[in-house]
Amino acid sequence: MTLTPQHLKELLPAVSATADGRFQYRLQQRLDRKTKPLGSLGRLEALALQIGLVLRDEQPRLQRPQMLVFAGDHGLAAQGVSAYPQEVTWQMVQNMLAGGAAVSVFTRQHGIELTLVDAGIAHELAPRPGLLLRKVGFGTADASREPAMSTAQCVAAIAAGRAVLRERPGNAVLFGEMGIANTSSAALLMSRLGRVPIEQCTGRGTGLDDAALARKTAVLAGVLQRHEGAREPLDALAALGGFEIAMLVGAMLQAAHERRLILIDGFIVGAALLVAQQLAPAIGDYCVFAHRGAEAGHARLLQLLQAQPLLALELRLGEGSGAALAWPLVDAAARMLCEMASFETAGVSDRACAPRV
Amino acid sequence: MTLTPQHLKELLPAVSATADGRFQYRLQQRLDRKTKPLGSLGRLEALALQIGLVLRDEQPRLQRPQMLVFAGDHGLAAQGVSAYPQEVTWQMVQNMLAGGAAVSVFTRQHGIELTLVDAGIAHELAPRPGLLLRKVGFGTADASREPAMSTAQCVAAIAAGRAVLRERPGNAVLFGEMGIANTSSAALLMSRLGRVPIEQCTGRGTGLDDAALARKTAVLAGVLQRHEGAREPLDALAALGGFEIAMLVGAMLQAAHERRLILIDGFIVGAALLVAQQLAPAIGDYCVFAHRGAEAGHARLLQLLQAQPLLALELRLGEGSGAALAWPLVDAAARMLCEMASFETAGVSDRACAPRV
Repeated sequence: MTLTPQHLKELLPAVSATADGRFQYRLQQRLDRKTKPLGSLGRLEALALQIGLVLRDEQPRLQRPQMLVFAGDHGLAAQGVSAYPQEVTWQMVQNMLAGGAAVSVFTRQHGIELTLVDAGIAHELAPRPGLLLRKVGFGTADASREPAMSTAQCVAAIAAGRAVLRERPGNAVLFGEMGIANTSSAALLMSRLGRVPIEQCTGRGTGLDDAALARKTAVLAGVLQRHEGAREPLDALAALGGFEIAMLVGAMLQAAHERRLILIDGFIVGAALLVAQQLAPAIGDYCVFAHRGAEAGHARLLQLLQAQPLLALELRLGEGSGAALAWPLVDAAARMLCEMASFETAGVSDRACAPRV
Repeated sequence: MTLTPQHLKELLPAVSATADGRFQYRLQQRLDRKTKPLGSLGRLEALALQIGLVLRDEQPRLQRPQMLVFAGDHGLAAQGVSAYPQEVTWQMVQNMLAGGAAVSVFTRQHGIELTLVDAGIAHELAPRPGLLLRKVGFGTADASREPAMSTAQCVAAIAAGRAVLRERPGNAVLFGEMGIANTSSAALLMSRLGRVPIEQCTGRGTGLDDAALARKTAVLAGVLQRHEGAREPLDALAALGGFEIAMLVGAMLQAAHERRLILIDGFIVGAALLVAQQLAPAIGDYCVFAHRGAEAGHARLLQLLQAQPLLALELRLGEGSGAALAWPLVDAAARMLCEMASFETAGVSDRACAPRV
């Protein structure tokens, strides 16, 4: 199957830039009349402007935030790139659904609805509340031997991601992932699409020693060589990606198309965004970056994405846990626009917004 | 009035270190059985350990968090060190009580009880729910001419701070402040007690130009020279401090004495902690540092306090706004200990806690 321009047009939704000078001016004025010295809420103010532009609302209320965790398995795990066995993918999905995983705890803390999506776990899961069965396959193929996905599978995964997003309510969406070996897949995509040497994309994960890291890097270098020709975003995604990553790409594009605010979690979700951004450059306008994690390549990936993350807490868990932790800051920025008094209404002296010493 | 050792013993409560090797080992074991790769929640894990040690509880639940905002005026404001008029202090207190200030919005967002304390505002405030009238005076004296407080006033403010804390419920307390010109007072205390040149403690506040900054620095250098002999913590506090800062010192010491968790906001609350730490070195065990702000001296102050702040969002508002923004991270750390499943209970393969790749 070869993708024609017509295919692509049907597969990928339009994403518009949010820039609107006049509206941004009004938002800025509104911000500057709030009872605080000019600019004194720092990065929260830039965030408030972004939210206002995405939702096209001077008083943006974030409603029914959705955490979507896409899970899938990777044939490449057979090459020993992960120290955990593959069954951990489905076991952790069950744990998330049962409320015992980090992402379960943090989404519950903040009233964020949590949905798990079986994008392609190598295990049959029974239907269960909170779980969407959208399996494209029982894990991808081993990318060291053949493309991880066929073009048809990749297209199906993107379409499924879009459909999942369309079905969910709310105007803000947080993305997470679960999949043993998916930092390898993310590193491969980052290296190929970001033109970064694989050594700079491959990390110790959660504590690989030097020998294991060298082995992982060698395996990934071999995968890149095997798929030397897969240079376009969708070709690279099919050859090097995962079902959960492809669904993330589709869901992100759909979220931006619907003008929802998007929270980007860590390394793997960031790699999915790198794919999405090459398909629809304006998607960055909709994205808030939750954190800079401890994975070696993450800082560089954030540079590629021109991202300024909100948190830097040395997290390296994935799941969407970092996005859930950052959520209250995003919500605070929106509430600032909606709920803070102005100098006039509060009866506070302004003296031409002179600074407080 | 001269303080004897007996006076000090009555004035200052005992603060014990939280270190307890055996209990910490149990907490660490509990943490390491949670369904996540070892250490993968980064700084949140260190925070969870700290909370467990402070509350002496393997499953610490943070209950009824209190935001206490101490407000006071400064005679030094007459020297033009602040671009805002002094009346902004009481006006902002009214705004906080009415729910329109940043700290009002963020505490409401997180269900944190907000209490304002009139420590010494230069304005008569009528009684009002949420406001504690504990005025020690109508603003301090002008420290460029005489000590800001008498020893008796300083002692009274510390005692009042302790009493305020004792009356509040809960096991966690967030501290904020309001007072035109109190970054000057904080810079003076930092310079004197931290032995840092005043130029490194004095910032542009929220946007002073070069000339105004030079003038502020010159005024503060003169104040330090005038009170050359005030080198002990309480002498420095009386000569250079403010009523709200002295009450913060008392409230912090009492909070640590009662083994409550303490959230430190920004530059001014940090300067109060510097005083408290010299009176009771173990108080640091109880403190979580909310953020590194944009005020020039703040990074250096955090170094003096050996503090690693959770956020770095270029805030420079004060009020307690940074502490309120950081609160969900602290709560998340405690919830992780209480609510996350272990590998055994969740039925997740552990493979000797091997790292995920």
